[in-house]
This record gives sequence, structure tokens and C-alpha cells, in this order.
Amino acid sequence: MHSDFIKQTQKYRERLVARIFSYLSAEHPASLYEPMRYALQDGGKLLRPILAQIICEAVGGDQENVLNAAVALEFVHVFSLVHDDIMDKDDMRRGRATVHKKWDANAAILCGDAILIKAYEALGRTTAVHLSQTLAAFNRGILEVCEGQALDMEFEDRDDVSLDEYFYMIDRKTARLFSLACEIGALLGDGSAEQIQGMRRFGMQLGRAFQIQDDLLDLLADQTTLGKDVGSDIQKDKKTFLMIHSRQHATPEQLDQLLLFVHKNTLSPHEIQHVISILNEIGTIAAAQKQVQDALEKARQSLQLLPKSESHLLLSNLLDMLEHRTY
Amino acid sequence: MHSDFIKQTQKYRERLVARIFSYLSAEHPASLYEPMRYALQDGGKLLRPILAQIICEAVGGDQENVLNAAVALEFVHVFSLVHDDIMDKDDMRRGRATVHKKWDANAAILCGDAILIKAYEALGRTTAVHLSQTLAAFNRGILEVCEGQALDMEFEDRDDVSLDEYFYMIDRKTARLFSLACEIGALLGDGSAEQIQGMRRFGMQLGRAFQIQDDLLDLLADQTTLGKDVGSDIQKDKKTFLMIHSRQHATPEQLDQLLLFVHKNTLSPHEIQHVISILNEIGTIAAAQKQVQDALEKARQSLQLLPKSESHLLLSNLLDMLEHRTY
Repeated sequence: MHSDFIKQTQKYRERLVARIFSYLSAEHPASLYEPMRYALQDGGKLLRPILAQIICEAVGGDQENVLNAAVALEFVHVFSLVHDDIMDKDDMRRGRATVHKKWDANAAILCGDAILIKAYEALGRTTAVHLSQTLAAFNRGILEVCEGQALDMEFEDRDDVSLDEYFYMIDRKTARLFSLACEIGALLGDGSAEQIQGMRRFGMQLGRAFQIQDDLLDLLADQTTLGKDVGSDIQKDKKTFLMIHSRQHATPEQLDQLLLFVHKNTLSPHEIQHVISILNEIGTIAAAQKQVQDALEKARQSLQLLPKSESHLLLSNLLDMLEHRTY
Repeated sequence: MHSDFIKQTQKYRERLVARIFSYLSAEHPASLYEPMRYALQDGGKLLRPILAQIICEAVGGDQENVLNAAVALEFVHVFSLVHDDIMDKDDMRRGRATVHKKWDANAAILCGDAILIKAYEALGRTTAVHLSQTLAAFNRGILEVCEGQALDMEFEDRDDVSLDEYFYMIDRKTARLFSLACEIGALLGDGSAEQIQGMRRFGMQLGRAFQIQDDLLDLLADQTTLGKDVGSDIQKDKKTFLMIHSRQHATPEQLDQLLLFVHKNTLSPHEIQHVISILNEIGTIAAAQKQVQDALEKARQSLQLLPKSESHLLLSNLLDMLEHRTY
């Protein structure tokens, strides 16, 4: 993430982190609460809750009104990472062992469950007048995140996933939590119905851009910055934008070459470069970059629903910065 | 469960089952919704939600006010079964393959997650005036259920678990969901603060009795009625009332004999009978039965807080019937 945005959103992040840890004072049993604290101390970007905070202000609301719901959004995000890492057998995340690797799968299942319950605890502190609507939006959103994860796993066993199916999946698995964060920010800031809908679309496009960038970064990022193995999506035959697009547009020869790398245990830097050059030949890298640009452009249009303000400017800066995201 | 209680509570069960399945109309993706429907069609006793329904009426409330929350309680119960069965490596429940056995652990993790979210969806339909308080009670309760499960797993690696620790654990893992059901029933029936507290105590004692009976039935039940292997707690060295009490009160010779059966792969009917006769010698079976009686008696006292009514009589009958529970 671009350091300017980190600096500009420091005040949001500090309030958020303080509130997050106010929910984590319990100590006993240690086999439950230690993994929870570990999972929540992972130095994540806190993008989703910060979006909710900024948007709440951008529609004219008070940041305090959204703070507990913002915490809930981060808890849900971390819950889904902890469980997805078990399912995807990912041992590293952001340069650290994942919960199921550091402890075991049982500890990670229970840790994720308890973090999800904590999300509802935080959400439950939403002011009474908004609680029912916020809870309903939250439930719909998170259930769709689960649907997205189920689809992502279904896709691993299939070779004929279309780009339409891919977008249907990432709109749930990844983009839905962004759109939920933006929707809840506008809702708890007492934005108009049009603004709430518009921010939901903003979040959805931003989330799409984010996921396709993730697909790109899996190959293009620097190993240290990425915090996990470069090329791990290919090793697992994940149906990313890159793999679906390239399967559809490759010549038979290009496809044969690409498939040499699928399900391989590790990919050397040289092999990664080889994959990248094939994807460049096919036009897949450029197509992915265009998808990111298009989504960010649509997100930019949704911002016109918001009055000009410092918060509006922050959101606009965020889009600029996402264009240059390197991890 | 005694057939009279089943008959007497048929009208509650029918409303409940209809409402439960009204939350399960989604079909896609099948890898998510099929395991969910399977888990919820397990022919469970629906004891917890029915308790909430009866108690709501017993304090003078309308059953409709508690119906969605009752569904939420059953969803939470099933969520915890699905995840606990993964953690405990239990392949059978109520005579059927568990979700992780019929599908796999990934499907079961996600299935449990989505059922938990569905619980909050159902709970979110609680009338606005009660929502905040009900949600807070629910969150506190379910988090304690997770704490209980964490302790239960910690205990598997220890040989020095005390009976106090055992009660602390089952008060969370098992009894808490009963006490939550009873508390929510009284809360949503607009019972007095004294009745709400009293029903919480009622549920706690009932849940204790239920768990110690489960510990007993693991050895004493008929295999077909139990729906899983008899003696599985001993095979896994679960710290049940029976195993903790017998470890504390056995002579060195009795203990040596007992430990022959711990961690054994399967126990023959003859071996089960042998274990039972050792536990009878030690006085463990009688001590467990006395604990059940004491808890049911305390529960009976809490019932005096409720006015005489048909619902009151049902609760009283339930206690009578639990005394003779065989599965």
C-alpha cells in the first residue's frame, strides 16, 4: 500500500486499533484467546473498516457511529482469513505462520468461530435505531462471502470455469466485504438511500479491482513484500483471472507450456519469469490490468454521489493509490 | 427422549421445523447449501429451542415473539456440533455420518460458519425493542460455548483435571446453551428480571444434568439408540465426569485396570461391561447419578418462579422425563 494513504489515514487506524483491542481483554482459556490475538495482530491494512469510517464521514456522519461496526468488519475479515487458510492449506500470510500452522486446525477453527462471534458483539453496540438494518446487511453480506469461498473451492476441481463465473465468485468472496463496509459506512453516517446504494457499488468495484490485483501480485510481486510464496495460486490451480483468461486465449502450444507449472510443488524465480512471459504473450497480463483500470474508473464515478470534502478526497486518493499497489 | 414429552410438544416442534426450513431455501452453491440442509435434518430433539418457546409462554408471552430466536438457538447448536465433530474426529452422530465424514473437513468448516451466520439472520428478526439485549445475551452465551470447547480440548492432554474444572467446562460447553435458551425465552416473553435470572439458572442446572447423563450414556446406552460407538469417550480419553471421578477414587489396582481401556481403538460389549463393573465398584456410576438428581432438583426449585400454567406443567414433565432419559 502506498505510504501516503497510510499517513493520511493514521487517525482512523489508531482509533480502530484501540477499539479492536478493547474487545480482546479475555485471557482464559489461553488455547482460545492467544490464537485470536495473534490473528488480529497481523499488521493488516485495515482497508475495509477504514473505508467504513471515511465513508461515514463523507456522507456527513460522525465517525463514532460507525466505529463498532468497523471493528466488526475487520473481525469478519480476519475470521474468513483464518478459516480460508485452513481450507486452502496456506501456511504463510503476511510473512507469518497462519493460525492452523502455528497451532493446529482445531485451534484455528475455534479461533475463527470466536472472532466471528466477536464481530457480532461489536456490531451489537451499534445504536438501536440502526441496529436491525445494519445486522441484516451484515448477515446478507457475510453469507455471500461464504458462498464465494464455496465456489472458489468448487472451481479448484474444474477446468472449464468461465470469466463470468469468476466474477460471480469474486464479487462474493472478496468484493462483497468491501461493498458491505462501504454500505454500512453510508448507512451509519445517515446517508441517503442513493448514497448507500452508490457506496455499495463503489465498494464492489473497488473489491473487484483489489482481487484482480491480488491475482496479478501472486505472480508479479516481490516475495518479501508478498509475505508468502510467489506463484502459489498456480501451484494450487486456483481459478484466478490469469489462469481462466490464459486458458481461454492460449494457443495449444502456450497452454501445454503453462500446464507444466500447474500443481508443481515450488516454482523457482526463473520459472515464475517464464510463466509471466507466456501470460504476456497471450495478452493475459494486459487484460487483467485493463479490468483493474475499468473497475477503478467505475468506482471513481460512484464517488460523484458524495459532496466534496476532505473524506471525499481521501477516497479519491485511495483509488489513485490502488492503481499503483504493489502488495 | 420419553415419547410423552415428544407428543406433548408436537405443536412447538412443528412450528419450529417449518420456520427453520424457511431459512434454507437457497440452493446455490450446492457445496455450501447441501451440507447445511443435511446437518439441520438430523432428527435432533430440538430441546433448546422448544425450551425457549415453552418458557416464553410460561412467563405470559406470545410464542411468535420467540420463534426466530428459537430457530437461532437450534442453528447455533447445530453449528457447534458440525465444528466440534471435526475437532473431535467424530464420524457418526445420531446414526448418520457427520458432515466432515460425508463431505470433507473444508465443507464442514464452511457449513458450520454459514449455519452460525444463519443463526444471526434468524435472531435479527427479533422485534426491535428486544433486539439489542437479545443479541448481547446471545453473543455472551455462544462465546462461552467456544470457551468450553477450547477447555474440553485442553483437558484431553491432561490427566489432572479436577471435578471443579470439569463443571466449569460443561457449564460453558453444554449447559450455557440451555441457560441461554431459557434466558431468551423469558426475555422475549417479557418476564420479570427475577424470572429471566431464574430461568437462566434453570437452564444451567438442566444442562448440567444433561451433560452428566451424556457421560453416563456413552457407556450405558444401547449402541443403536445412541447412534454412535458406545465407549467412545473412553477411547478418546475425554475428561468426562466418569473418568475424572474414577481416577480420583480408584484404588491403584482399579486404576490400572481402567487405563487398559483408555485410547483403545474399539471396545467390545464385553469390555464395556468390564469398565462399567469397575466404575460401579469405585462408586462412580452412583456419584454421577446423584449429580444428575441434584441438578434436576435445583432446576425444579427454579420453576417455582413461574405461575402455574400448562407451560409450567410441561417444564415440570420435562424434568421428570429427563430422569429416565435413555439417549
